[in-house]
Amino acid sequence: MVKLVEDERLDYLLAENLRIIQSPSVFSFSIDAVLLAKFAYMPIQKGNVIDLCTGNGVIPLLLSTRSKAQIVGVEIQKRLYDMAVRSVEYNQLEEQIKMIHGDIKEMPQQLGYGKYDVVTCNPPYFITPKQEMINENEHLAIARHEIYCTLEDAIKVSSQLLRQGGKAAFVHRPGRLMDILTLMKQYNLEPKRLRFVYPKPGKEANTILIEGIKYGKPDLKILPPLVVYDHANEYTKEVEEILYGKKDKD
Amino acid sequence: MVKLVEDERLDYLLAENLRIIQSPSVFSFSIDAVLLAKFAYMPIQKGNVIDLCTGNGVIPLLLSTRSKAQIVGVEIQKRLYDMAVRSVEYNQLEEQIKMIHGDIKEMPQQLGYGKYDVVTCNPPYFITPKQEMINENEHLAIARHEIYCTLEDAIKVSSQLLRQGGKAAFVHRPGRLMDILTLMKQYNLEPKRLRFVYPKPGKEANTILIEGIKYGKPDLKILPPLVVYDHANEYTKEVEEILYGKKDKD
Repeated sequence: MVKLVEDERLDYLLAENLRIIQSPSVFSFSIDAVLLAKFAYMPIQKGNVIDLCTGNGVIPLLLSTRSKAQIVGVEIQKRLYDMAVRSVEYNQLEEQIKMIHGDIKEMPQQLGYGKYDVVTCNPPYFITPKQEMINENEHLAIARHEIYCTLEDAIKVSSQLLRQGGKAAFVHRPGRLMDILTLMKQYNLEPKRLRFVYPKPGKEANTILIEGIKYGKPDLKILPPLVVYDHANEYTKEVEEILYGKKDKD
Repeated sequence: MVKLVEDERLDYLLAENLRIIQSPSVFSFSIDAVLLAKFAYMPIQKGNVIDLCTGNGVIPLLLSTRSKAQIVGVEIQKRLYDMAVRSVEYNQLEEQIKMIHGDIKEMPQQLGYGKYDVVTCNPPYFITPKQEMINENEHLAIARHEIYCTLEDAIKVSSQLLRQGGKAAFVHRPGRLMDILTLMKQYNLEPKRLRFVYPKPGKEANTILIEGIKYGKPDLKILPPLVVYDHANEYTKEVEEILYGKKDKD
């Protein structure tokens, strides 16, 4: 049993045997969150993982299928936090996933410095918009624009939460690559793995996945490109497996 | 007629109707130079182009097939400069290509600040080695290691030589991506186009191609990946065309 509010739906979470509450007018997860949940390093047996700007909790739900670690999700919007909590309950994952309603900037003080093995974050991509745009749909604006959480906030807080040697993984737009690399260096998250996501063959990348290690040694690897659609506008094999699982598992 | 010295050979320059003097023990061009010559923006009818760390002049020779612009090549090693001069003469390109024997750091003063439309540079990739390694083969060591030309030298000089709005294109290793982006920003060469070269499908990138515009606006595009070999260890179609020309031109 799950309580759905307004235009909420209980969607299937793709490859996994999970359901997630979504709402077109409030928040629906994007493919970027799914790619980040697949890209991020995850300890299998134990550890402490935290997902910042968690939205409806899609990344913690996906990570729970890859790890027995304790996972925390932090969301500043009460409306989205409520969706995430109900999804965790529906999937009976309360033992593994804990949702926190709050500002990520307060988390190091609230949860402790250097206590986490892994941080993931799919932050708002866009610089803060004008007030008129925010008024149109506050929920979507906050999730998409740097209103309560700038890129620097996300990277600084990630570094504060991580233990030495811990890993932070982010997804963002290529236009911010320089900013991300610079900020990660500045906050001692040494960039180690960088992967570019291309919407189709022959097109420019529209997404970057990047992972850094706190106080790691400089040694940046550029992973093979990830192409989402093939020439026939079908998902490529790799993306289909990320989204729907390997065919032999069906 | 061309005079060949020691173990020099007069090699075909791939797709183009050109020949180039090479020597296994002194200098042979790499695929990276060919990729850079193809990647760099080139004015077609006129302009001033300069190639720094030009080696045996492979990049000016290749660029001459794409443009009527005046092209200068700068090489600090007399032995390589001599090879480049003889190749230019052999191909009867003395009207278009001028070789200079000298230190790139002296070129802005010697040739003028802000006088060039395009700078290309395939700089030495490796940090300066120990003296023993340099002694083994001085010519190759100077071409490959930052002995007379550091990455910062190459980027600083490129910026000094370029007019506002002029373009600089570099090829380097992914491990230096962060340094290149930072130095380009520092010297007002705004990174605009970045392309990663992968040796094979599924492998990490081993080369980067990057172009910046002097005093350009921040807007970095990540171009489609360039894969050199396919699964069967044959050149991919794109690389084959870069190296040997389009099949319909044969």
